[in-house]
Amino acid sequence: MKIAACVEYDGSKFCGWQIQIRQPSVQAAVESALSQIACHPIRVHCAGRTDTGVHACGQIIHFETRSERSEKAWVMGTNSYLPEGVSVIWARQVDASFHARFSAHSRQYRYVLLNRNVRPTYLARRVGWYPRRLDVTRMQTAARALLGTHDFSAYRSARCKNKVPVKTVSQLEIASRGGWIWVDVQASGFLHHMVRNIVGTLIAVGCGDKPVEWPMQVLKQRDRKLAGMTASADGLYFVTASYPDAYELPSKVVPCKFW
Amino acid sequence: MKIAACVEYDGSKFCGWQIQIRQPSVQAAVESALSQIACHPIRVHCAGRTDTGVHACGQIIHFETRSERSEKAWVMGTNSYLPEGVSVIWARQVDASFHARFSAHSRQYRYVLLNRNVRPTYLARRVGWYPRRLDVTRMQTAARALLGTHDFSAYRSARCKNKVPVKTVSQLEIASRGGWIWVDVQASGFLHHMVRNIVGTLIAVGCGDKPVEWPMQVLKQRDRKLAGMTASADGLYFVTASYPDAYELPSKVVPCKFW
Repeated sequence: MKIAACVEYDGSKFCGWQIQIRQPSVQAAVESALSQIACHPIRVHCAGRTDTGVHACGQIIHFETRSERSEKAWVMGTNSYLPEGVSVIWARQVDASFHARFSAHSRQYRYVLLNRNVRPTYLARRVGWYPRRLDVTRMQTAARALLGTHDFSAYRSARCKNKVPVKTVSQLEIASRGGWIWVDVQASGFLHHMVRNIVGTLIAVGCGDKPVEWPMQVLKQRDRKLAGMTASADGLYFVTASYPDAYELPSKVVPCKFW
Repeated sequence: MKIAACVEYDGSKFCGWQIQIRQPSVQAAVESALSQIACHPIRVHCAGRTDTGVHACGQIIHFETRSERSEKAWVMGTNSYLPEGVSVIWARQVDASFHARFSAHSRQYRYVLLNRNVRPTYLARRVGWYPRRLDVTRMQTAARALLGTHDFSAYRSARCKNKVPVKTVSQLEIASRGGWIWVDVQASGFLHHMVRNIVGTLIAVGCGDKPVEWPMQVLKQRDRKLAGMTASADGLYFVTASYPDAYELPSKVVPCKFW
């Protein structure tokens, strides 16, 4: 029996999604809690692994089990075993062909940035922070050039192991209000640090250090050493992954927006 | 010389505004940092003291000093001495008649509530949480009856020392989106726990336990034992206080809204 589930977490409390020795990972917490409910060891697969400090509103996972449990048991039961900072939002039995990573046709991230001279307080480690004034219109113009199918090698980290650097960015929208800026990115897939490198490069345009054509020039060079700084993990949210309608997954992910 | 300043803080990191022995208070942190910049002991007064766990987007303070410093020094200098979770947003010299508490003609609070069956993760201790479904329309109808000038004794805590229980509520608006509910309250002044008791009473209406007329009936009885539960401090934000225009204070407070 295969179950899909949606997991929300506070990235500041974990070393990232993936299990690491002697560090608290989201994966280890979720597998341990699900195993208590299933009464046998559970191994989970996720839609998109996240780095240390990166949050998720709607990480999608799947796992196999031989235990019959109600959807409520998979959600509320599992949550009773999970530590603070991670919750299961929903769970649903899915077709055997479903795979959280391979069935996803797109993934969505949101980067939340506080643009003011003073550091954040009640949203510390929940938003990125840039103290110099950013021109959002310049950032929006620069961002448009990255839409579409491109080789994003210039925006991947040195540690990126993804074999296909060509990705299709279907959405790259920047909105702002009262010092808050949020960048919404949707793509077929993402390279390691891709969103954070795009945001860092757009910040260099927004503050006037680089011309609006620069992110496109960087893209064309395919050399990651040319791109801007990597924006902090604090402001990055894995919003959700999208799947074919046939799997009939709930779509009640509510991405966070702050101002 | 009198200086007014705006302070933002994460209430989860402090025992509340007021200085308490062997506990980290916002007041102690701010006075200590300002004293470093002034090179003499500074005593601050605030617009509205907040309880343990209550946050502030725009707490207004004032202090007297004999040290001449630039506005930038009062802000950036002070912030360099402040612990994580509290920041000075702006500072400005004001007329000697200004008093953060007594010159304020109104104060504004926002209560942010996550209404879903699963507890919050990345906004834990930054929002209130109620697991049963709330009918926002019922809450809005009930709230309207509390607008205006009333004796709010039924909504004060047993520890409230305020001598005047009659307050004028000029705004009590409830909005919602995708599981998030926020309650904005503006009044001439507030009694201890007044916003949290109003929110708790509106929750009892929203979940259907009490009729929409109930908050008004409670108000008329003037007996605090009749009101609903006190909503958690986690979701409460002191947004800001308003002063006569003559003081020319900056108005760049941006209250938080989450969804």
